[in-house]
Amino acid sequence: MAYFETVGKIKYEGSRSTNPYAFKFYNPEEVVAGKTMEEHMRFSMAYWHTLTAGGSDPFGAETAIRGWDKYSGMDKAKARVEAAFEFMDKMALPFYCFHDVDIAPEGSSLREFYANIDTIVDLLEAGMKTSGKKLLWNTANMFTNPRYMHGAGSTCNADVYAHAAAQIKKGLEVGKRLGAENYVFWGGREGYETLLNTDMGLELDNIARLFHMANDYAKEIGFEGQFLIEPKPKEPTKHQYDFDAATCISFLQKYELDKVFKLNLEANHATLAGHTFEHELRVARLNGMLGSLDANQGDPQLGWDTDEFPLNIYDATLTLYEVLMNDGLGKGGINFDAKVRRQSFEPEDLFLAHIAGMDTYAKGLKVAAKLIEDRVFEDFIAKRYSSFKEGIGADVVAGKATLASLAEYALNNENPRKNESGRQEMLKAVLNQYILAE
Amino acid sequence: MAYFETVGKIKYEGSRSTNPYAFKFYNPEEVVAGKTMEEHMRFSMAYWHTLTAGGSDPFGAETAIRGWDKYSGMDKAKARVEAAFEFMDKMALPFYCFHDVDIAPEGSSLREFYANIDTIVDLLEAGMKTSGKKLLWNTANMFTNPRYMHGAGSTCNADVYAHAAAQIKKGLEVGKRLGAENYVFWGGREGYETLLNTDMGLELDNIARLFHMANDYAKEIGFEGQFLIEPKPKEPTKHQYDFDAATCISFLQKYELDKVFKLNLEANHATLAGHTFEHELRVARLNGMLGSLDANQGDPQLGWDTDEFPLNIYDATLTLYEVLMNDGLGKGGINFDAKVRRQSFEPEDLFLAHIAGMDTYAKGLKVAAKLIEDRVFEDFIAKRYSSFKEGIGADVVAGKATLASLAEYALNNENPRKNESGRQEMLKAVLNQYILAE
Amino acid sequence: MAYFETVGKIKYEGSRSTNPYAFKFYNPEEVVAGKTMEEHMRFSMAYWHTLTAGGSDPFGAETAIRGWDKYSGMDKAKARVEAAFEFMDKMALPFYCFHDVDIAPEGSSLREFYANIDTIVDLLEAGMKTSGKKLLWNTANMFTNPRYMHGAGSTCNADVYAHAAAQIKKGLEVGKRLGAENYVFWGGREGYETLLNTDMGLELDNIARLFHMANDYAKEIGFEGQFLIEPKPKEPTKHQYDFDAATCISFLQKYELDKVFKLNLEANHATLAGHTFEHELRVARLNGMLGSLDANQGDPQLGWDTDEFPLNIYDATLTLYEVLMNDGLGKGGINFDAKVRRQSFEPEDLFLAHIAGMDTYAKGLKVAAKLIEDRVFEDFIAKRYSSFKEGIGADVVAGKATLASLAEYALNNENPRKNESGRQEMLKAVLNQYILAE
Amino acid sequence: MAYFETVGKIKYEGSRSTNPYAFKFYNPEEVVAGKTMEEHMRFSMAYWHTLTAGGSDPFGAETAIRGWDKYSGMDKAKARVEAAFEFMDKMALPFYCFHDVDIAPEGSSLREFYANIDTIVDLLEAGMKTSGKKLLWNTANMFTNPRYMHGAGSTCNADVYAHAAAQIKKGLEVGKRLGAENYVFWGGREGYETLLNTDMGLELDNIARLFHMANDYAKEIGFEGQFLIEPKPKEPTKHQYDFDAATCISFLQKYELDKVFKLNLEANHATLAGHTFEHELRVARLNGMLGSLDANQGDPQLGWDTDEFPLNIYDATLTLYEVLMNDGLGKGGINFDAKVRRQSFEPEDLFLAHIAGMDTYAKGLKVAAKLIEDRVFEDFIAKRYSSFKEGIGADVVAGKATLASLAEYALNNENPRKNESGRQEMLKAVLNQYILAE
Repeated sequence: MAYFETVGKIKYEGSRSTNPYAFKFYNPEEVVAGKTMEEHMRFSMAYWHTLTAGGSDPFGAETAIRGWDKYSGMDKAKARVEAAFEFMDKMALPFYCFHDVDIAPEGSSLREFYANIDTIVDLLEAGMKTSGKKLLWNTANMFTNPRYMHGAGSTCNADVYAHAAAQIKKGLEVGKRLGAENYVFWGGREGYETLLNTDMGLELDNIARLFHMANDYAKEIGFEGQFLIEPKPKEPTKHQYDFDAATCISFLQKYELDKVFKLNLEANHATLAGHTFEHELRVARLNGMLGSLDANQGDPQLGWDTDEFPLNIYDATLTLYEVLMNDGLGKGGINFDAKVRRQSFEPEDLFLAHIAGMDTYAKGLKVAAKLIEDRVFEDFIAKRYSSFKEGIGADVVAGKATLASLAEYALNNENPRKNESGRQEMLKAVLNQYILAE
Repeated sequence: MAYFETVGKIKYEGSRSTNPYAFKFYNPEEVVAGKTMEEHMRFSMAYWHTLTAGGSDPFGAETAIRGWDKYSGMDKAKARVEAAFEFMDKMALPFYCFHDVDIAPEGSSLREFYANIDTIVDLLEAGMKTSGKKLLWNTANMFTNPRYMHGAGSTCNADVYAHAAAQIKKGLEVGKRLGAENYVFWGGREGYETLLNTDMGLELDNIARLFHMANDYAKEIGFEGQFLIEPKPKEPTKHQYDFDAATCISFLQKYELDKVFKLNLEANHATLAGHTFEHELRVARLNGMLGSLDANQGDPQLGWDTDEFPLNIYDATLTLYEVLMNDGLGKGGINFDAKVRRQSFEPEDLFLAHIAGMDTYAKGLKVAAKLIEDRVFEDFIAKRYSSFKEGIGADVVAGKATLASLAEYALNNENPRKNESGRQEMLKAVLNQYILAE
Repeated sequence: MAYFETVGKIKYEGSRSTNPYAFKFYNPEEVVAGKTMEEHMRFSMAYWHTLTAGGSDPFGAETAIRGWDKYSGMDKAKARVEAAFEFMDKMALPFYCFHDVDIAPEGSSLREFYANIDTIVDLLEAGMKTSGKKLLWNTANMFTNPRYMHGAGSTCNADVYAHAAAQIKKGLEVGKRLGAENYVFWGGREGYETLLNTDMGLELDNIARLFHMANDYAKEIGFEGQFLIEPKPKEPTKHQYDFDAATCISFLQKYELDKVFKLNLEANHATLAGHTFEHELRVARLNGMLGSLDANQGDPQLGWDTDEFPLNIYDATLTLYEVLMNDGLGKGGINFDAKVRRQSFEPEDLFLAHIAGMDTYAKGLKVAAKLIEDRVFEDFIAKRYSSFKEGIGADVVAGKATLASLAEYALNNENPRKNESGRQEMLKAVLNQYILAE
Repeated sequence: MAYFETVGKIKYEGSRSTNPYAFKFYNPEEVVAGKTMEEHMRFSMAYWHTLTAGGSDPFGAETAIRGWDKYSGMDKAKARVEAAFEFMDKMALPFYCFHDVDIAPEGSSLREFYANIDTIVDLLEAGMKTSGKKLLWNTANMFTNPRYMHGAGSTCNADVYAHAAAQIKKGLEVGKRLGAENYVFWGGREGYETLLNTDMGLELDNIARLFHMANDYAKEIGFEGQFLIEPKPKEPTKHQYDFDAATCISFLQKYELDKVFKLNLEANHATLAGHTFEHELRVARLNGMLGSLDANQGDPQLGWDTDEFPLNIYDATLTLYEVLMNDGLGKGGINFDAKVRRQSFEPEDLFLAHIAGMDTYAKGLKVAAKLIEDRVFEDFIAKRYSSFKEGIGADVVAGKATLASLAEYALNNENPRKNESGRQEMLKAVLNQYILAE
């Protein structure tokens, strides 16, 4: 049966199309910078926002109209599988992502949860075979159930810790079975509400222990996906340990996990941490840690995770710029961790929102590729730092300089190189040019 | 001559004193938790805010009335030395801190700057001998001069880099001569305005190179002070590499500098980074990186570094709590990196503000010591995490658990330990009790 | 039956009591500044946080353990009434507040909702008679039901507008019957998500029309409570029209409602708007608009309404200072629009949190009263502005000055009055003294 | 002589031009929506940022290279006049704006200041006659001089108040002489640092008195410019009374100044207040208060006024959309209250930055005009609110409805109108289309 009868397959119609149910920029087969758009993007549907969420907020009940809501329990879970493949097919999304609780009800015991998961994974596996859709990543939801109120890996209750481990174990098994390209850890409850009741040292140690166990088990069962941590500074917890890319890297280095993990970066989480998204991408890229993306955007006037569809062309361009400079995302992809607004409650809005996001990223890809092809920023930067290619600058880079040699040089340097303008306004105008002047 | 004629030596008069020019809580000789208050606090005067700053802001000219402003050039620099010792003496401050440009004018060449510094350091050395005052730390100002517009260690201009190295070299020599207990790096221009013109990888490498050179030179000349990095996320630069404690630790680990450096943490910088100060202290403490403190406070409604004197008793208590739990600050101290408001422009305000700050910290010390003595939080925390002391929890901590063993446990755990309330409101009420109910 | 068996009546035991279930500062009968604490405070229980809320957040399910949750539908509603009076009694709270949906289920039609309300109001009325508890205010919840997704007074759907009117009508009737001292409008959905689809002019006009209708109906039925608007800048809606006190006043002036309405100010809403709470109180006070208070506090690191119990002694002192300077709150009171943390899920936490909040406010009241009695700030301020009491300053205040007369004065003013220090640090130290030095 | 020898007149070359010193979108003579771009825009040079500012920040000295800095005192002031006209000419800017202190040194007395102003105004008048350039607005700087540390209209020092009045008097006379189209009040020091020392009521009354005096004097001398208040929430002062558009309107209504004043809205000030710029424009427009614009942009990661050139196409489009919906700005214009970055210190950067800003606004104008021409949002909105055009909705708008009539309607409304999706994502995608798909 069809859950999205009112909408057909979304096709590319070109930028002048006025059909709201068509791509204007995203043409999966178009080749940009040596690869098709589809290969570059590896777009993914977030199961939770598209199939599970209902549009509630802290002050309002659910609003979404969804065809599968006439069912309940496992019937609803099964209906969602059908709807998922229909949506991915119509929407031209080659990948999807899920938490365990998105796909199957928890039931009344862990054993029942495992069984429910198995039943649904059978359906997913079959659907993937038929459709060719792939699993970008899966994960365990260790934050919604009241059990996790004090954390999962960072809980003060050892029995809760064991339960978390059991969910991860199952998640890795499911990931292996479905060929997941990554496995994600987002620690929404891994942090603290107040230091007054918190043993931060033990909590961090315990999280690291859990990650090592996960890595050991992945090796044991032959799970070959990439492990990813998803940084977020806060919300729901007051302070979350995975604050931003640099904090995660610091943690991974300390616990000798930096060879095992990369980062799954989310735009809205970056802004909550006080960063631009491109900053987080750059930090990860320079550390060889750029794993995968959760594509969305926040609202600069709002202090919580709004998870809006990414519609800002500047952000999209600079994001894809970093991705291209990284030679792509490898096993990673671009997952729409984005939700339609509570007032966009009709099924059609799911399409309109994904079209909007995919088109914005597609245009961003094209602009970024052209900027790189023309070496707009690269040439400017190369010239700007050229004093480190020769003379005393080259000595610095080569490790030959000392404070004494540099001081000697400075004392006798009668005509020091003048600084030159950073030309920030011009460079931003050029970026505008590339975005607008086509 | 006296620059602060209107104010005498500040004495302890006890909490009921209505004399605004008296300590109410800070009694240097009073013993708290096994040490005198003076030994705990190691309070320090910031040369720049007390002797050099004039109260300007981006929209307003200087307002401060300072006796030494009738002089100029080296005469003014010399007058400031006199005033510094007078102020430290009257204010009961055993330490001070300075940037090179605070104490001596740059003159028209690096050579002249060196000479000016030497002249003033002679005076400082003499004054220290006479007064017994000590140098908590010194540093090089590598952000005010237009030369550093693009950074110092992160500059794109190799000649500027050499100049920075020359300042650091001199700084270490001065530090050695004056017996500085620490040497601080604050990278106010080490960051970027826009990624569009920035080679972040080279910039970070170059900063690390400079730090290694500094360490090598310190060993060479026998400088025994502790190196400190001072994190700040932004301002003046849009993004600064030393964003917060975790980011600095990540950098130090990557470049193998983590054994050489600790952190100089500033309250207002923490809040600009989206953290509480106690969070930054805790992160540093758990990593063995808690070096020294820049005591001040920001304004939660304002998005820039207001550097207000620290007057909040909650912050003071939780700061001293971390310090006590760290067994003190070692070579570090508590430096008042705080400025009187632009409207508090009279010399007397310098005293009133320091009294206010020192009293707040003194009260905070007493409250923190009592909290620790009574094990108020420690006992609660020990009980809260007790499930990791036995059974499956102890296995986790001992490294004996695996995902499989934990899952097996969880599957067969018929009566999992119930979660217990985190009692956040009660614990905060107890904190209020300790602060208010004396 | 008893819903809070584990906790007895909360009594005043004085500041040195270590019993967590006792007041340390709040002594209802103690006279401060001419009135009992109870008369000053007029503390109120928020029905929604205490009886209805369950501790969910956008990423987590409910956690609260509540005795009435074994019931459902009208049975649960009735059980909550019992629990409400038990809680108010034990907690020494003389007032309460509610939204219509807090007390009664909406049922399947407006008619059924009315009937459910009537049933519960019978019970409330009886309980009030028995207990002597009073209704500080009631209101209609016009934001949770999906019907209100686009607003209530600001909806684009006229049928929804009519439904809102019907809820207000009933609310006023209930308020009259229960002797409500106020009626509150909080416009959580009165605003916009994006201007692209919004007719702001019509929306504001329609809200004003609804307020005028409410006022007309109140007169018609003889409802004598005070109308109150509760400002909040955002959340759930991206922008809410009642941004802050000044914005509300501007709206009320424009639509000639400023004689009819006062403001119900909430601390956390002030901070979300970028203000201190005392600022909002001062603005309202100066405009004769200070109506009632929603007591809570936010977290300076978090960008959403955390509705924490108010535990900060500075905020409490400055809040009560404004209240005392306003000669009290008249018909208003201090309503704990505050919720226990999700991890404070045990029934006992409701008591511990209220005790913490009431004690903080009680201590704040005592400090504020003493500050006013000693005219600490008043005398300083009177002296500071004294130049407007005589000469040219008095002319200005009397309306006798012109630009020409002032320019003439300035041109010939050879020795202008010098500015004097604002003494901000000293004044804040004095505030600390009054708080800490008892 | 020429101060900008390296740059010629900026010409329109069309969007594909790669000449950085050319307009790509701004073609002054091109007709858009019935007027030339020049008539729509009324672009203005800010004297302070272009001629006076030097690139200092709170942590750094001036960096700018400016030809007139070889002069000092009145010679420098005269050189700046020459440079101003050269810049306006080359940059195609028909208007300019200034503060009194921008154009002339204050000297050692008010009398001398007046004389200096007169000398420079002679030159400005001559230059305007020759060049045809016009004065968009002038104002008095009542915030930089230490005299104004406690405010100007809100000062506690009556002699300072008189001095402020004298500056305004002169400002109005200068405005009249130069044909200023507006006169602006920006109250950077009109606010408070702490309520502890502030008589807010007197301060607000005194500001209103000053405004009334200014209005009286304007009438007296026949000054016909429009009075404007420029809202800003904070910086330099902790809280400024002119927080945002709504707050200013509330003030103007209370003091019966709302017929005399309109608003000069600045983008970066809006974001500091927690608003989008289009929000502030809409609020002003609906109240008939949209006067003039200070065009710039802030940085969402930074909490201070960065005054960057406006380069964001979304902001530009929505700004011009409001301007077009307002039928233009009347006497107002678009003033570049924007400064080149401290690292963009070369004279050429002034051109590159203005080109970037003017082009962004020009493109925004074209997109906004097309959106309005196609009634993209207007038609959607008309349909969305159509239920208020008929039946019960029309009754509401006509003032015929009461709570009773609406409740009656709601009770008997068996099939209430269903809500429809707000289509936010689609509308934003359409906006992207109009921006990108040309």
